[in-house]
Amino acid sequence: MTAPLRLGIAGLGTVGIGVVKIIRQKAELLRARIGREFVISAVSARNRDTDRGVALAGYEWEDDPVALATRDDVDVYLELIGGTEGAAKASVEAALRAGKDVVTANKAMLAIHGQALAEEAEAAGRAIRYEAAVAGGIPVIKALTEGLAGNEISRVMGVMNGTCNYILTRMEKAGLSYDAAFAEADGLGYLEADPTLDVGGIDAGHKLAILSAIAFGARPDFDGIELEGIERVTIEDIRAAADMGFRIKLLGVAQRTGRGLEQRMQPCLVPANSPLGQLEGGTNMVVIEGDAVEQIVLRGPGAGEGPTASAVMGDVCDLARGLRQPTFGQPADTLQEATRARSELPAPFYLRMALLDKPGALAKIATILGNSGVSIDRMRQYGHDDTTAPVLIVTHRTSRVALDEALTAMAQTDVVAGAPVALRIEHL
Amino acid sequence: MTAPLRLGIAGLGTVGIGVVKIIRQKAELLRARIGREFVISAVSARNRDTDRGVALAGYEWEDDPVALATRDDVDVYLELIGGTEGAAKASVEAALRAGKDVVTANKAMLAIHGQALAEEAEAAGRAIRYEAAVAGGIPVIKALTEGLAGNEISRVMGVMNGTCNYILTRMEKAGLSYDAAFAEADGLGYLEADPTLDVGGIDAGHKLAILSAIAFGARPDFDGIELEGIERVTIEDIRAAADMGFRIKLLGVAQRTGRGLEQRMQPCLVPANSPLGQLEGGTNMVVIEGDAVEQIVLRGPGAGEGPTASAVMGDVCDLARGLRQPTFGQPADTLQEATRARSELPAPFYLRMALLDKPGALAKIATILGNSGVSIDRMRQYGHDDTTAPVLIVTHRTSRVALDEALTAMAQTDVVAGAPVALRIEHL
Repeated sequence: MTAPLRLGIAGLGTVGIGVVKIIRQKAELLRARIGREFVISAVSARNRDTDRGVALAGYEWEDDPVALATRDDVDVYLELIGGTEGAAKASVEAALRAGKDVVTANKAMLAIHGQALAEEAEAAGRAIRYEAAVAGGIPVIKALTEGLAGNEISRVMGVMNGTCNYILTRMEKAGLSYDAAFAEADGLGYLEADPTLDVGGIDAGHKLAILSAIAFGARPDFDGIELEGIERVTIEDIRAAADMGFRIKLLGVAQRTGRGLEQRMQPCLVPANSPLGQLEGGTNMVVIEGDAVEQIVLRGPGAGEGPTASAVMGDVCDLARGLRQPTFGQPADTLQEATRARSELPAPFYLRMALLDKPGALAKIATILGNSGVSIDRMRQYGHDDTTAPVLIVTHRTSRVALDEALTAMAQTDVVAGAPVALRIEHL
Repeated sequence: MTAPLRLGIAGLGTVGIGVVKIIRQKAELLRARIGREFVISAVSARNRDTDRGVALAGYEWEDDPVALATRDDVDVYLELIGGTEGAAKASVEAALRAGKDVVTANKAMLAIHGQALAEEAEAAGRAIRYEAAVAGGIPVIKALTEGLAGNEISRVMGVMNGTCNYILTRMEKAGLSYDAAFAEADGLGYLEADPTLDVGGIDAGHKLAILSAIAFGARPDFDGIELEGIERVTIEDIRAAADMGFRIKLLGVAQRTGRGLEQRMQPCLVPANSPLGQLEGGTNMVVIEGDAVEQIVLRGPGAGEGPTASAVMGDVCDLARGLRQPTFGQPADTLQEATRARSELPAPFYLRMALLDKPGALAKIATILGNSGVSIDRMRQYGHDDTTAPVLIVTHRTSRVALDEALTAMAQTDVVAGAPVALRIEHL
């Protein structure tokens, strides 16, 4: 039997406590599978006195995560604090420099500082593992870096923010407005302290940047993602989509195009009866397409104590078994700086706009679309209450560039109130 | 850069040729990801002269797989021959004894001889990897042994034989009889040389035995599976199921019950709009339930050159990276001999039988069911042509034991022609 693997756990929120519970409750199972004991040498969190529902008195305590990360009796440092900068980053760097392997659930840190951290880890001969950072309990990082290593990946897609999916699902099922569904999610504690991270698509964007780096051998490029949140999706959009047999999902897509790497995280219409369309609540789904494997679909819980702790423990078990590989599946210095490509693959789009009650308004819009080469599949104008009338348009397949040209031209007319909503229709 | 990894490939059918192509065509990608070269030292197959659409003249040839498996210039032996015994088993054993790691796609060999082979591998300090043996391109072995290592697994389920699914799908979509759909699948080359392996559920049963061993820390126990093929499913069953909103799938389930390990591979009715019900053609799906992760669903192509070669390459890459672990996720000598449990969880059942045209026949059947405590949810008797009338019954939730008691009693009456068909209805 190999020596015990000694862990230092920083951050005792949902994920951290979930990990402590698994290690305490499943010592025997883990010993049978891994052939090693797991020992928690010390823990750290902001407040020592919080009742976390599990006895922590038996573990040494460190106020400072950096001190924890560099303890002599720690082999693997678990960074479960979160946040792009600050204690999370400082302690991970300190751990690597001190020769520790790192397990983290921190998608933001990896999406922003992943390249530098991967370089530090490799310089130190250590590993950073982060299964819990993307799609909760789904072992998607493992599938992509290991299981599909023989594939040239062509596309990665996913619905990866449970909170957005919850809000959109509740809007549809209960007929709630965006604000009401948002308030409900907030009341249930589903939202991050800064809710923009969720509803602005930033959290899901971080996850996409990580998947994209692995899939395409590129440096993580969060800033290269065309990012759009769900804040402007209305109950009318959801109903109109449903009428046409679609649901609205915050969908991430990363793919190679002739001109570079396209990454987008945007609300899209997907067929209601498709696997993506059927996703409800906090369930995540990731679709991976490769030249050999064709298409793999992975579905599972995207958050929560059990699923995220399951993912962290998978990483800890791998390290205990001696698996250590480059952070993004290949050495950091071989990751390419990806050329950013805008989405070029044409698609039908759903448009919603408020037309001012002026003669010829609709004709003007139709003309502008025609001039940009965007042809209309269906159009519907609703009876109006106020001085504006809602108009819904579904276009035939068009490029986003042509559509944006039309949207810019519309903004320069005097017939459209506010900015139109434009959502891509994906037939996945 | 570490030394090249030298491969010996035995079996140059679909899988073997797929692997050769990936290694030839993606040398650069693999080098970037793994940091090593892959070299094919030698190959072996039954017939050297077959045109396999890829140039093999550059590789050394061995007529005897055992000779290939023990060559000095082979680090990893790829057994892609197939078959439970014979050359496959002999060469794998020889490879392990000669200190080689083994990658195989051979589900039958692992389901039957897995325990002995795992012991041999561990005694030799070598690994057997077999991602391609279960569910084709889906990295399910990896998910179960590694990603979910922190979970107590409660249930594993799956649709894992593409040929059966193809036949059942064609029967429904094209209204074909079982025999016609079988002949179509045969014409397309989808069937094994011995078609019973597919339609008898044996191939899928082998896969279930492997998953079950990993999930429950049990010795693979293929003989412990309640096994039933699709041969008795008729177009009438498929139509009746569709009328009630169900589809028929050959579904494998392995779960722990209070009395032991329940393993069954049987045609079942599943809701048509559920993820399992929506599976079409050769696509496989595996569902894993664990105490921490809740439920993970993995979907992908279950067969074919690309997907199986992708799985084999995932294993080869893992070995190249130095990952080596016990065959079934924990040391072979810690695997328990599982107590076989019959399915005890009650479920509704679908019954079809041919009643002889005798007065009181239906009453007799209803009485027998009632006496066994099986209550009837719905019953339908069709107009009859011959001397028998088809009767369909859907029961309320009942145990299989009670149902079997009723079926035995029915067989002893003089009103039922032939053996009734009984299919479990799973609300998954």
